[in-house]
Amino acid sequence: MAPGLIERLFRTQGARDAAALRRLHETCGTLLSERGAANSAKFAELAIEHYTALGDDARAAFFGLLAERFGPDAGRVLACARAYAEERSAGNLARLFEAVEPPRQELLRRINLGPRGTAALVRMRVDLLKAMKSHPALAAVDADFTHLFGSWFGPGFLELARVDWKSPASLLEQIIRHEAVHAVRDWDDLRRRLEPDRRCFAFLHPALPGELLIFVEVALLDDMPDSIAPLIEEHAVDARGSRARCAVFYSISNCQPGLRGVSLGNFLIKRVCEILRRENPEVRRYCTLSPMPGFATWVRAGAPLEPPRAPRGAAAQLERAREAVRAALQGGTLATDAALLENLEPALREALERLAVSYLYATRDTDPASDPVAKFHLNNGARIERLNWLANRSRRGLAESFGMMVNYVYDLERIEDYHEGFVNGRVATSRALLRRA
Amino acid sequence: MAPGLIERLFRTQGARDAAALRRLHETCGTLLSERGAANSAKFAELAIEHYTALGDDARAAFFGLLAERFGPDAGRVLACARAYAEERSAGNLARLFEAVEPPRQELLRRINLGPRGTAALVRMRVDLLKAMKSHPALAAVDADFTHLFGSWFGPGFLELARVDWKSPASLLEQIIRHEAVHAVRDWDDLRRRLEPDRRCFAFLHPALPGELLIFVEVALLDDMPDSIAPLIEEHAVDARGSRARCAVFYSISNCQPGLRGVSLGNFLIKRVCEILRRENPEVRRYCTLSPMPGFATWVRAGAPLEPPRAPRGAAAQLERAREAVRAALQGGTLATDAALLENLEPALREALERLAVSYLYATRDTDPASDPVAKFHLNNGARIERLNWLANRSRRGLAESFGMMVNYVYDLERIEDYHEGFVNGRVATSRALLRRA
Amino acid sequence: MAPGLIERLFRTQGARDAAALRRLHETCGTLLSERGAANSAKFAELAIEHYTALGDDARAAFFGLLAERFGPDAGRVLACARAYAEERSAGNLARLFEAVEPPRQELLRRINLGPRGTAALVRMRVDLLKAMKSHPALAAVDADFTHLFGSWFGPGFLELARVDWKSPASLLEQIIRHEAVHAVRDWDDLRRRLEPDRRCFAFLHPALPGELLIFVEVALLDDMPDSIAPLIEEHAVDARGSRARCAVFYSISNCQPGLRGVSLGNFLIKRVCEILRRENPEVRRYCTLSPMPGFATWVRAGAPLEPPRAPRGAAAQLERAREAVRAALQGGTLATDAALLENLEPALREALERLAVSYLYATRDTDPASDPVAKFHLNNGARIERLNWLANRSRRGLAESFGMMVNYVYDLERIEDYHEGFVNGRVATSRALLRRA
Amino acid sequence: MAPGLIERLFRTQGARDAAALRRLHETCGTLLSERGAANSAKFAELAIEHYTALGDDARAAFFGLLAERFGPDAGRVLACARAYAEERSAGNLARLFEAVEPPRQELLRRINLGPRGTAALVRMRVDLLKAMKSHPALAAVDADFTHLFGSWFGPGFLELARVDWKSPASLLEQIIRHEAVHAVRDWDDLRRRLEPDRRCFAFLHPALPGELLIFVEVALLDDMPDSIAPLIEEHAVDARGSRARCAVFYSISNCQPGLRGVSLGNFLIKRVCEILRRENPEVRRYCTLSPMPGFATWVRAGAPLEPPRAPRGAAAQLERAREAVRAALQGGTLATDAALLENLEPALREALERLAVSYLYATRDTDPASDPVAKFHLNNGARIERLNWLANRSRRGLAESFGMMVNYVYDLERIEDYHEGFVNGRVATSRALLRRA
Repeated sequence: MAPGLIERLFRTQGARDAAALRRLHETCGTLLSERGAANSAKFAELAIEHYTALGDDARAAFFGLLAERFGPDAGRVLACARAYAEERSAGNLARLFEAVEPPRQELLRRINLGPRGTAALVRMRVDLLKAMKSHPALAAVDADFTHLFGSWFGPGFLELARVDWKSPASLLEQIIRHEAVHAVRDWDDLRRRLEPDRRCFAFLHPALPGELLIFVEVALLDDMPDSIAPLIEEHAVDARGSRARCAVFYSISNCQPGLRGVSLGNFLIKRVCEILRRENPEVRRYCTLSPMPGFATWVRAGAPLEPPRAPRGAAAQLERAREAVRAALQGGTLATDAALLENLEPALREALERLAVSYLYATRDTDPASDPVAKFHLNNGARIERLNWLANRSRRGLAESFGMMVNYVYDLERIEDYHEGFVNGRVATSRALLRRA
Repeated sequence: MAPGLIERLFRTQGARDAAALRRLHETCGTLLSERGAANSAKFAELAIEHYTALGDDARAAFFGLLAERFGPDAGRVLACARAYAEERSAGNLARLFEAVEPPRQELLRRINLGPRGTAALVRMRVDLLKAMKSHPALAAVDADFTHLFGSWFGPGFLELARVDWKSPASLLEQIIRHEAVHAVRDWDDLRRRLEPDRRCFAFLHPALPGELLIFVEVALLDDMPDSIAPLIEEHAVDARGSRARCAVFYSISNCQPGLRGVSLGNFLIKRVCEILRRENPEVRRYCTLSPMPGFATWVRAGAPLEPPRAPRGAAAQLERAREAVRAALQGGTLATDAALLENLEPALREALERLAVSYLYATRDTDPASDPVAKFHLNNGARIERLNWLANRSRRGLAESFGMMVNYVYDLERIEDYHEGFVNGRVATSRALLRRA
Repeated sequence: MAPGLIERLFRTQGARDAAALRRLHETCGTLLSERGAANSAKFAELAIEHYTALGDDARAAFFGLLAERFGPDAGRVLACARAYAEERSAGNLARLFEAVEPPRQELLRRINLGPRGTAALVRMRVDLLKAMKSHPALAAVDADFTHLFGSWFGPGFLELARVDWKSPASLLEQIIRHEAVHAVRDWDDLRRRLEPDRRCFAFLHPALPGELLIFVEVALLDDMPDSIAPLIEEHAVDARGSRARCAVFYSISNCQPGLRGVSLGNFLIKRVCEILRRENPEVRRYCTLSPMPGFATWVRAGAPLEPPRAPRGAAAQLERAREAVRAALQGGTLATDAALLENLEPALREALERLAVSYLYATRDTDPASDPVAKFHLNNGARIERLNWLANRSRRGLAESFGMMVNYVYDLERIEDYHEGFVNGRVATSRALLRRA
Repeated sequence: MAPGLIERLFRTQGARDAAALRRLHETCGTLLSERGAANSAKFAELAIEHYTALGDDARAAFFGLLAERFGPDAGRVLACARAYAEERSAGNLARLFEAVEPPRQELLRRINLGPRGTAALVRMRVDLLKAMKSHPALAAVDADFTHLFGSWFGPGFLELARVDWKSPASLLEQIIRHEAVHAVRDWDDLRRRLEPDRRCFAFLHPALPGELLIFVEVALLDDMPDSIAPLIEEHAVDARGSRARCAVFYSISNCQPGLRGVSLGNFLIKRVCEILRRENPEVRRYCTLSPMPGFATWVRAGAPLEPPRAPRGAAAQLERAREAVRAALQGGTLATDAALLENLEPALREALERLAVSYLYATRDTDPASDPVAKFHLNNGARIERLNWLANRSRRGLAESFGMMVNYVYDLERIEDYHEGFVNGRVATSRALLRRA
């Protein structure tokens, strides 16, 4: 944040907001002082009240304050680093550590001591993420939120809850509201997703009572599914799901935008696998039926191609496939239209599938252009198992990926290998998949 | 930890222990690696198993490893500190922060991901505290435990539980085991302490299910008590405690030696005050009846005296009082004997009380010689209200402080003032108390 | 049930049903025998299975069996009655009691010992009530069900549950399904009825886990309401209902048709009054806003009139009012039409109101023609407080009572007086109401 | 109760008690009246208060009142019986039923409507059972209590609770207080009985919250035990009891003297068998290790002998065995002394065992002289499996049965056969046992 920004921010506030902001600044000072230490809960409550009273701009200004006035003292950091370099004693390390930690971290920790302090900080971060779009320098502040949230919302402190039709309505309505992959139409639709052949698990946290953090929906089926409609629309044939040999994670959704970037989904999937392994020992396979949200955009954008396999001519072949697809798109013989896709000429379909495999195969941990869902599951240690043609005929499914969906498989014995490989640039796939490349 | 220590530690282990230690070291490496990141719960469980299998010496050696091999890289720290000094960007700060944080912190965080990982770390720290007695350099490792525990056991994550006769026996037996101030003789004694004129509150933590962290016992009385016996021994006159105007915190005990130094008591007392204020609105005063554990030792040791008030001659008068007391102790006319103390000549009693007031008044936050109980309550923002002669006739009470006890008062309106004053060297007292100085 | 009926019933069953019925009959015999006593749960389960497998007619035949073959032995009853008349000893009384109790009562008690036996019996009675329509002689069997249910579902064994938005969805959907007075449109409508200015209480029973027996909806308002629409449709102004001085029971619905005739509503209302008195001490008045379901039918039917007050000419005046109303109904100047009623000529409205008061005032405990809602509340000890013109503009409200609704008031000090009076033919009303008669 | 008794009872009361009794009588009248029907909870509470205020004699007088003034009207009973004999209609049966039922039954049902009414009635019956010792005519009143309790405490309404070390101390102390077979010395002893190789189950009832009705203690062992000491005294070898093939019911105790005669133990044992079958599928045998409380008394009393088997001379042989035992008892060569019994001459031991088998084998359902424990288990459908010499060396065990104990076996497949046989005079035994007869 450029020097002078705070002043400008202060100036641009209305008189009332500026006064409120000053009060909040002052309370933060007290909270960090000895006086505040004695009764942190009280001053934390006050700080939260002051913050809540602020408008959007004043909130952004407050984050600016945190960035500018509550950061570490560079001079002191350097001195401490030098002392530690000279003598690597425990005392010198402690002093360095203390010098480096921005005072705003302690401030956030103390705000956390107020009644419902954690919930207030999670809401505060929603504002911060919004403000960061205009003020990228606030990333330093966000790093402190992330650091603390990562510690507070560690998996050891999360409660895993089974969600079913006996769960409180106040929890269930959060499922309806936050389901981000396959929207829940209404309560009847929700009830179907909680029938005995389904499982739904969520993480909660003692400091956010009654609030879901994240949830995953699972279907117990006989086989790995190749289409989403039966999972969403139809009622259970085998109501108990008791003979199921395949557990399908068909939707995972975050409920707390303020916890963005805090790793929850990875732990949730693994905890749920553990539970299913214990309670449904006949299940042999843990897999997903997942969207491919970035594919259509990627096809249109025409990024560099990277063929999964390198026989002679593979790159050229792939390039030709893309050319054919893009031409068909422009010529109108290919579109995100179910009827058209159903009757697509075989060569074009083959080209599309080949491109999809190559798109997935190019997923890289650090590449912001990679498919986010692929990145999530591959990073969790899953492998890409199968591409499913016209598996999602919803408007969104067609628009995102011409209706294609992917099965990722969680092979509990190979998770570490796969994850390690992925971090080192190797994407795990089934053999069958590569043959289509 | 001096260079070469690890090697020596390794050498001194038996072959079997050395092998076990090597396996643990290796597992820690994996846990910190990418491979470990994919399935931290599994490797954390393994690390805990390996650790648990170690003997005492090998555990000490493991802490040595943490100190030597899992600390920050001094060169990198210095480089990052310089970069930050040159440009105070968020990126530079993040890199510095990451360089300064010892890798063992991340290691402990990952161990925490294992099943019952938090409990394992709390037990591990008990071993560490023991090992630190012989190896003070392990303090650097302990700093990391303390840092993490402070974050994980923050008051927002603690569950306050009312403990009564309907509580699980498995909780109640922890009260019997850990009551550190006035020992609970048996279950009947415990039941008396849970009668309707009493309150008992405890902190629990979701990651240590079924385990008390700390508890406080409260008696609801008509007046501030001047003797411990009725609280411990007698049955309630007013069984409901419903007319009580005074809430007395007469015992507070920690149950987790592995959480030493993590601030719990301060928050517990304040939360309990809040609850009592709501549920027993007729209570007007929140106070303690507390021991003075270091007094007798201090009298015998003959430390420099500091008179609470400074009229001419105060210091000399105090010195004379101590001389009289020490002479009587050596001469046998004063001893930690109830009968003797009951019939003590007035001048000697006055001398003892004067000394006690001066002892308490000299309490300083940072002085390791100060009375620990006084330090705890004064730091919490309480004030010293009254000295009570022969308030505790138990063998221990007589030995520690010639049977004297102290009432500290928590005046909810003045807690911040008192705490701030104490940190700046001012001890809050009632006027009546000072008159006895 | 006429002799030979059983035989006929048996004959009319298909071969398969007859066989099933015979199996059930046999199992009932075993269940009542010593063999059955040793493991009643097992044979009870078997009997329930056999019963469940029967079709509707075979079920009716089974009830016929209970009536004919499982009744008391008249000869033995007479002998025992004579012995008791001669000597009123405890032994003779016990024998008489045993002789009089139909064996089917013991049979039902033993069926109740099976897993989910109570639920099975409650469902069985739904069938019995249906069968009774064609076979009135089954009333003797129904008397045994009623006798036992009255004992098992006594208020001491009911659990009073507060229902709110945190209640399990599986409970809430029962509210939606069974709300019999003012239909719940959907989940949003339900949520509005569970907002903080509302209360909903239900009875559950340990032997019917997860099933509501009856529930009551309460609105906390400033004044006694004169129209149902705001209660059903609008959102709370004072969300906490904290200043409310009036608790309005605006809907009470049974959820178990199999428990018809078992007194639940009376106890529910009184328990809820107790709770509200404790939790909302500022509430001064407990009242209802109730429908008058039989009024329009009664007006059309032209039953004998009974004027509430007997000044000279009252009867004639009332008769004239009715003539006017009926003429207007036939002439089409009066109809169950909101617009028409709103603009009704004053004389006709006055005539309708006069008739309504007289209709209510004629309510008698034992008169099957009396208004059922009036009978319920008057028998509970309430008084009729106020008639409300056009208080319910729903199609049903207009059709049943030209849109009029009634407030009954529960004056906790006078409940016994009012109930006693009602049983003796006196209807409690406010003075204001009678003035309109 | 002889006529005039009430008057006498009234006269013998002090003036104050007589007044209190009159108030109670009056309240009972109101409670049964229409006035009482409207607000039964209120008048029930009043009746309970009045009753509680009475002394022991006045309570007996109250039961006399119930017997004399609240019984059925003999004339009306006779008339109704005649009407029913003439026409067996449902209406006539209903009227007869109503006439026969003593009004005090309805009175008790209405008292049950008061707050904690069920608990009050259970306590009341404790008084009644005491009063019956002097006034046997009160048996008619007791029959009504028993009838109602049998209905209210039916197994469908009981909650089965697993009791373990996590149970509330307030429940556990009831185990200590009521364990009637093998006294629990203290809390440590109790904890041992709740270790992982043990199970303890209890029935509770929603109308008696927090009170145990009955509990059973189970040990999970490898084999059927032949001695009680290891079960009571030793710690678990296999702490989890996970390999156990034998579940031993080694103690069953009632906690509510007011529920005497209400069948609870039979249902408890069968429910626990069900649970163990589900949770511990490796358990193959369900048995007991039971005392034989009446044996020594029976030997001394010299009742007629009934040999289990009837080969020629069996009766004479048995008679000789008893003579030998009684002579040894009188001669002092046999006594309830562990050392003596351990070194008993073989012939005498054999005689004792033969007598024991014959004693058990003579158990009859209706014989008040039969062993109560044998009667309980045989009536439940168990069989006598094995006699165990010196299985209980406690003072009480030696005194009751010379230290012998019995294993009863619950063979889940044969329970009905055994029970049916027992009711018809056949005692189920193992073959091995009879060989010792």
